[in-house]
Amino acid sequence: MNRTAFFISDGTGITAETLGNSLLSQFDGIRFNKVTLPYIDTLEKAQAVAQQINAAVDADQVRPIILDTIVNEEIRAYIAQCNGMMIDVFATFLKPLEKELGVHSTYTVGKSHAIQEMHRYKDRIESVNFAIDNDDGARTQQYDRADIILVGVSRSGKTPSCLYMALQYGIRAANYPFTDDDMTLQDLPACLLPHRDKLYGLTIDPFQLAAIRHERRPNSRYASLDQCTLEVRTIERLFRQQQIPCINTTTFSVEEIATRIISEARLARQL
Amino acid sequence: MNRTAFFISDGTGITAETLGNSLLSQFDGIRFNKVTLPYIDTLEKAQAVAQQINAAVDADQVRPIILDTIVNEEIRAYIAQCNGMMIDVFATFLKPLEKELGVHSTYTVGKSHAIQEMHRYKDRIESVNFAIDNDDGARTQQYDRADIILVGVSRSGKTPSCLYMALQYGIRAANYPFTDDDMTLQDLPACLLPHRDKLYGLTIDPFQLAAIRHERRPNSRYASLDQCTLEVRTIERLFRQQQIPCINTTTFSVEEIATRIISEARLARQL
Repeated sequence: MNRTAFFISDGTGITAETLGNSLLSQFDGIRFNKVTLPYIDTLEKAQAVAQQINAAVDADQVRPIILDTIVNEEIRAYIAQCNGMMIDVFATFLKPLEKELGVHSTYTVGKSHAIQEMHRYKDRIESVNFAIDNDDGARTQQYDRADIILVGVSRSGKTPSCLYMALQYGIRAANYPFTDDDMTLQDLPACLLPHRDKLYGLTIDPFQLAAIRHERRPNSRYASLDQCTLEVRTIERLFRQQQIPCINTTTFSVEEIATRIISEARLARQL
Repeated sequence: MNRTAFFISDGTGITAETLGNSLLSQFDGIRFNKVTLPYIDTLEKAQAVAQQINAAVDADQVRPIILDTIVNEEIRAYIAQCNGMMIDVFATFLKPLEKELGVHSTYTVGKSHAIQEMHRYKDRIESVNFAIDNDDGARTQQYDRADIILVGVSRSGKTPSCLYMALQYGIRAANYPFTDDDMTLQDLPACLLPHRDKLYGLTIDPFQLAAIRHERRPNSRYASLDQCTLEVRTIERLFRQQQIPCINTTTFSVEEIATRIISEARLARQL
């Protein structure tokens, strides 16, 4: 049986989507057809949404889940008339929060964020530029400005993890890929020695590494299981010898890798 | 008055943090000291959290807000004993969802996600690589693989927007920066002509553009208000003439730019 789930917002829809995915992932057996509808900020758009909801009821022969973070009461009331199970996030939580805090909430979406966002935006641009400039050991002379330096073999997940930390949290994350040459060293590469306390290791299951590399360069030595196994064993030994904290990325999503590193390295969220 | 707000999870904490920020942003006058505590997945960690909560009560002289997405009942119950206003997201919404769906939810965090996440991970890596490879018009021959191509002047927000779409939604986003040379053309640059339907324009207030560029290259012609005004006017005229949809990024966050483009260009979320 198919169920449609609508995540509706008069803003970006990120909160509705994040919460919705989180709640629905607790129901294993059900296939959800998830539809995110952001920027539903006029009655005209709400009418189009209502039509879409009614069409889903007809198609699925069962009422959909509707999770919303709409602030505007009129728009929310309009959508609440539809035939669906309504999960009204703000109505549920803002009332008790108002009571606890002893003040009314500002029922205006977006407006109050603009100025705050400007700072976030600049910090992020800076962090994203830093991550790109310092990707794959390109500019090791900027390492003293880094909040963290991820180290690992090629394709162990360094780049997306750095970019996620930059975009989501404004953290300046550099990365250094261990190459064949570095592997023969008994010590850390010279450029990393002064920054030992900023290093964080990524490791990965050799089978998965081989699969990932295979997509990039099929049937190469680089992608062979032998080579991947050798590299992973060597780098894991180095992490142990040098007491570099590390995380095995094999079963983790980019969010999980990033949030675990932030948590364990006690990095401050900048945003 | 300061209020501490704890966002606690036995997973990444992203849902708790996203929802928490969203709710608290509705209360303008109050300064919140926000603390995200992810991976609270043992009773030992819960005990440390309880101490942290009690310390906040002492410091603030008022009980904190505690918003949690902890799935484990025992851990949640332990933290619920603390002196705080508890917003229990899963307990609030999962019960009515179970009733609606007629099944029990799987009260196991992370486990059921691992395999699903593997696909997401690969798609993301691919999209992130695509965004980096196709940043700043580096490889225009890959444009036929792109889901979207952002166009705009230097520093109008193309790179972070592309990376956000790649990381968050697995969308293959390329970008092409308009240079002085392109500006003198009456038509689009040749490399963009075959991909007219994938183009999306970014524009920005010239004052803000000058401020952003000034941080990159202080007192340069590149950062001068005259140059920024000229470039923005020229590109906005081109967008109009060529009927390229566009967004003014001036007051928007990276999330807003990305989600608005996805919504208006009707791009499919890949993740």
